[in-house]
Amino acid sequence: VLIQDIGEKGLLEKLHRFCPPDIIGDDAAVLEIECEKECKKLVITTDMLLDGVHFSHQTTSAEDAGWRAAAANLSDLAAMGATPLGITVGLGLPGNAEVNWVERLYQGMTACLQQYDTPILGGDIVRSPITTIAITALGTVNSDLIIRRSGAQVGDAIVVTGYHGASRAGLELLLHPEAGPFLSPSDKEVLIKAHQRPEPRLDVLPILKEIFTPYTNNISHPVHIAGMDSSDGLADAVLQICHASNVGAVLDYDQIPIPPSFGDWLTEEKSLDYVLYGGEDFELVLCLPFTLACTLVEQLQLLGQGTAIIGKIQKDTKVILQDKNRLFPEQVLRSDQGFQHFSPMSN
Amino acid sequence: VLIQDIGEKGLLEKLHRFCPPDIIGDDAAVLEIECEKECKKLVITTDMLLDGVHFSHQTTSAEDAGWRAAAANLSDLAAMGATPLGITVGLGLPGNAEVNWVERLYQGMTACLQQYDTPILGGDIVRSPITTIAITALGTVNSDLIIRRSGAQVGDAIVVTGYHGASRAGLELLLHPEAGPFLSPSDKEVLIKAHQRPEPRLDVLPILKEIFTPYTNNISHPVHIAGMDSSDGLADAVLQICHASNVGAVLDYDQIPIPPSFGDWLTEEKSLDYVLYGGEDFELVLCLPFTLACTLVEQLQLLGQGTAIIGKIQKDTKVILQDKNRLFPEQVLRSDQGFQHFSPMSN
Repeated sequence: VLIQDIGEKGLLEKLHRFCPPDIIGDDAAVLEIECEKECKKLVITTDMLLDGVHFSHQTTSAEDAGWRAAAANLSDLAAMGATPLGITVGLGLPGNAEVNWVERLYQGMTACLQQYDTPILGGDIVRSPITTIAITALGTVNSDLIIRRSGAQVGDAIVVTGYHGASRAGLELLLHPEAGPFLSPSDKEVLIKAHQRPEPRLDVLPILKEIFTPYTNNISHPVHIAGMDSSDGLADAVLQICHASNVGAVLDYDQIPIPPSFGDWLTEEKSLDYVLYGGEDFELVLCLPFTLACTLVEQLQLLGQGTAIIGKIQKDTKVILQDKNRLFPEQVLRSDQGFQHFSPMSN
Repeated sequence: VLIQDIGEKGLLEKLHRFCPPDIIGDDAAVLEIECEKECKKLVITTDMLLDGVHFSHQTTSAEDAGWRAAAANLSDLAAMGATPLGITVGLGLPGNAEVNWVERLYQGMTACLQQYDTPILGGDIVRSPITTIAITALGTVNSDLIIRRSGAQVGDAIVVTGYHGASRAGLELLLHPEAGPFLSPSDKEVLIKAHQRPEPRLDVLPILKEIFTPYTNNISHPVHIAGMDSSDGLADAVLQICHASNVGAVLDYDQIPIPPSFGDWLTEEKSLDYVLYGGEDFELVLCLPFTLACTLVEQLQLLGQGTAIIGKIQKDTKVILQDKNRLFPEQVLRSDQGFQHFSPMSN
């Protein structure tokens, strides 16, 4: 069945079952604001995704496209320290799109959202020559626990909440099924899943809350946290945080977690390229005082692998990657380029 | 200058000046929730607008396209009784779009938004073969004063907050400049402005609040209000409210305000067609007890013309248009058709 056969109204009726019936059906969705003792802030973020740019039929099923769209927006909320309230979905669809494709898109979105009790708060559908998904996510955060890019301080430890590079490696395996011949099927599956079904790190927020609670409202011992998600890559995240905070960073090559299966497949250079510049891992990159960072990593290790303190914030505004074993020279990371190959052979 | 010349980053930098600097620059925008005594609800709405469908270069300048996009979303908030907190803007733009066009789009949006102290809370930009504007608007409303489509009760008066049909007439004048030869230039200007620069009726909300305040928290004398905006036409609004409330309505032809200049231009049939089915006037259609409706109309008349009680809610679920002067027979309004021409000659 094609969209043009059932029309916008017919499609809306089919999609209504993905939304809470008491929330939709008016000019806008209505949400309760909890009036608690703690003062909360609203957090809002919007993403536009286009067929052929942000998802493709080669590597992305409708369900995966939906999951990834939802995950990317929830990750933006997690990056602010915010718990989701809901999302709205604007869709631009060609008349000859399959109704089934759209329903599977919504199934993928809700599969991701349901893990975090997050409803779809309605949206809008228009006919468009190109499939376009516009998602706006809404959340709340306690004023004390808000995570901004600015606010990283000299001496802060830089924490990653999990592995980087896995999503990029998974994409490579989808594009070139013959790649990684020495990888086990389960290793391949883990990497492909990292690409198709990334998990927003909302599970990190209760841990942060627990760690920070003794310090909130403690004016003599205020603590701070800065950070963002690594949707555009680990290097980009560190660079953006440093730029917003007017500081720099030193990253230790030895301390950056690399997905274990990379050793059976990729050169050290290629591994580092994926880890630093791969993108779409949707982990959090957080800057906070060293002792708190240690507690955080200890707690995060109970949730999964690949979490570590990978470096520290410095005054000099450069972001430097250094190798203590001196296998390669120190290099300055920049946003306008990928990894600079360190072997003289590759120049 | 074309978008492809300055890239997404270059364009974002130019557009940042339309957003409050303390709100953007992170993964998501942050908003204060006022923790007052009154318990408020959040209201959220999303619209997708496409070049060639929702605006066209023939009748819409970039500024007007921006104004109308903002106005349509603010109108959805007004329709819920909600005061705006802000909007997010997702843009899909062809690489050969003019940077100047995008800036003028934002100028139009902010010109409309500034009237209601409403900020742009950031957004997203992607390259797309077709210009696409995805707007999400966020607002708050006191639980007591929320306006839903459902909730109209038998005997309620139906109030329009202003003229209908003016936007459709303005569009006609833009498409056919030779139309309406007997209209004065200022009449034409009023109608064209109704199309290009519609005003969301947020100015109605303080009046509603004033009228309803004696009744809020009064359990022995609860009052109710139902309604929506008339973005898809007056007939559509009445039909949608009746459908959601499981009631019907009787509209009095004599009581429906018709823009005064229509008499110098349009036949009675054509006038009624524009008034009932024209759309995009962004007035409110409200159902409330008769005495409160009288007070409301009295107050609204201080703001402008074209407000009136146009009919009442009835038990029978049909929506009937009747003419007390019996110039034409009673007719049943339906959403799937335009005005049924009442003259036997036109059949």
